[in-house]
Amino acid sequence: MTSLLTQGMPVTDAALTAIAHIPTRSLPVLMDEGFARGLTDADFMRIAVLLALKSYHEGGCPIGAVIVSHDTGWIVGKGHNTLVQENHPYNHGETAAIRDAGRQDFSRATLYTSLSPCTVCATLLYMRGFSRVVVGDVSNASGNEAMLREQGLQVDILEDATGIALYARFRAEQPALDLEDWKGLSAVRAEPEP
Amino acid sequence: MTSLLTQGMPVTDAALTAIAHIPTRSLPVLMDEGFARGLTDADFMRIAVLLALKSYHEGGCPIGAVIVSHDTGWIVGKGHNTLVQENHPYNHGETAAIRDAGRQDFSRATLYTSLSPCTVCATLLYMRGFSRVVVGDVSNASGNEAMLREQGLQVDILEDATGIALYARFRAEQPALDLEDWKGLSAVRAEPEP
Repeated sequence: MTSLLTQGMPVTDAALTAIAHIPTRSLPVLMDEGFARGLTDADFMRIAVLLALKSYHEGGCPIGAVIVSHDTGWIVGKGHNTLVQENHPYNHGETAAIRDAGRQDFSRATLYTSLSPCTVCATLLYMRGFSRVVVGDVSNASGNEAMLREQGLQVDILEDATGIALYARFRAEQPALDLEDWKGLSAVRAEPEP
Repeated sequence: MTSLLTQGMPVTDAALTAIAHIPTRSLPVLMDEGFARGLTDADFMRIAVLLALKSYHEGGCPIGAVIVSHDTGWIVGKGHNTLVQENHPYNHGETAAIRDAGRQDFSRATLYTSLSPCTVCATLLYMRGFSRVVVGDVSNASGNEAMLREQGLQVDILEDATGIALYARFRAEQPALDLEDWKGLSAVRAEPEP
């Protein structure tokens, strides 16, 4: 099988966008092992941001996540928030990527998330044994990084300016959706009218 | 439209089993409003247990949950664990029922769960604004009831002997699946061989 992206080819935003959009199980038709091995932390974070951008273009919340195996260097799960798209009350970037990965030993995997995890996702990350989390935006979120470190996870901050700007724009455009995604419709209804 | 179950008919286990299995949006073809209004806390808990039994028969983890609106008395979401059935690393009874319900104001709803919620689900319950949770089995789980009460939820224990016996049986038969459902495959692999 010949892949579209092979070892030594440049890692462009077009390449990373295709990686973000293609189903995880179809990744081998898009890139070969050499190309995959060349991807860096910053590339995986950019893929998470490109998944967030996909969600934004669909009218949803712009948050994405990618899971990479330490053993193979391959992406084993990825996804984005689907509050709007699936009428799904809690499917954040992290939960989408873990659902996509299926039953795996996550202790030898890193999860890259475009936005700092909420308390539900942070709890899920340590309860499923993740050893490392890379966070792309801590400026727009309330910060569960300390809790994750207390639970023994390695937490790295790798800010992606595109992702930070995208989330800030979404929050300004759709404050009610941002609040619902974090604390549910009950919190939106409890807010005083502006 | 004439429903199969109408006001005044006896609430049998056969009726509750049909309610458990039919899709939530199809419930009005099964029972009319009068029948639905006659259902008690114990009946909703039994429906959660019958969903757990459905999962057990499918080879999965026997945990079910039901969400009932305080305003209409109707079931607005229900489901069971799908770790095995969907290869889903965190879909517990509570998450299945909330996913089924979709985007709703859960502050005027009660969630009935056949088993005491794990820390991820307990966090999700208060983060999505639930006001009341009814737990059917606190003997087989580690107890997040105190945390939920601290977060302001009303927590009622309504033990269902059938559900308790079913989960105890599953735990004895499939200890590895029970552990994976709680703490992931990494915890199973970290266990010494028996």
